[in-house]
Amino acid sequence: MTSKPAANPAESGRYAFDGIDRVLHEKARLGILTSLLAHDGGLVFNELRELCVLTDGNLSRHLQTLQEAQLVEIWKGHKGRRPQTLVRLTDAGRTRFLGYLAVLESIVSGALASAKSDEATAPAERLGFTAG
Amino acid sequence: MTSKPAANPAESGRYAFDGIDRVLHEKARLGILTSLLAHDGGLVFNELRELCVLTDGNLSRHLQTLQEAQLVEIWKGHKGRRPQTLVRLTDAGRTRFLGYLAVLESIVSGALASAKSDEATAPAERLGFTAG
Repeated sequence: MTSKPAANPAESGRYAFDGIDRVLHEKARLGILTSLLAHDGGLVFNELRELCVLTDGNLSRHLQTLQEAQLVEIWKGHKGRRPQTLVRLTDAGRTRFLGYLAVLESIVSGALASAKSDEATAPAERLGFTAG
Repeated sequence: MTSKPAANPAESGRYAFDGIDRVLHEKARLGILTSLLAHDGGLVFNELRELCVLTDGNLSRHLQTLQEAQLVEIWKGHKGRRPQTLVRLTDAGRTRFLGYLAVLESIVSGALASAKSDEATAPAERLGFTAG
């Protein structure tokens, strides 16, 4: 399991993950942003709702959060005679989301690498601890 | 900036991300679990707090959530004469967290791939929409 030393001062803050912005990280918003990244011309409300399996209310609430953070833009219009809402990533939103994905990628690869290196080490002895 | 079709029925739920468990996904808990994955013999409370830059109260609250989900185990003991709390990933916690990381890895690589393929496509025309 491990013979690694526990945390040392040089590692302080190593797992604070400052690059993880909670506005982008939240599960439903991660789905919305990923959908929009894959559909650069935007998606209408109903398409987004289906892709992300969200209720109208939940999707509206998350879109508002994303709009307030200037990550998405909301357009009102029509498809045929039907009123529709179109959602697109802003340029800033695209840049920020790509930055977030790069951070996430490095966290995941670092975590998986540390798990693999643990497998190769011998168990440590931690004495004096009792279940609580 | 896309010539891709919008969502079709076959894509329904594609971005619901069912494999993202919110218990593991929350930013602070992601940091705690990543720390523990890299220190398989466990970490004492103060080490975790420094690595993740959390207050005592926040760390306690998140550890309780993780313990209730049977992802971590909490041990009471001493280092020298000082009472200490040791936190370790459970075997089930390790398995679930590695599963979560694999899901996250595939989401990130899929998202980055879709962003790259968008860059190669021509702008689409979306008519009839006005800023709102």
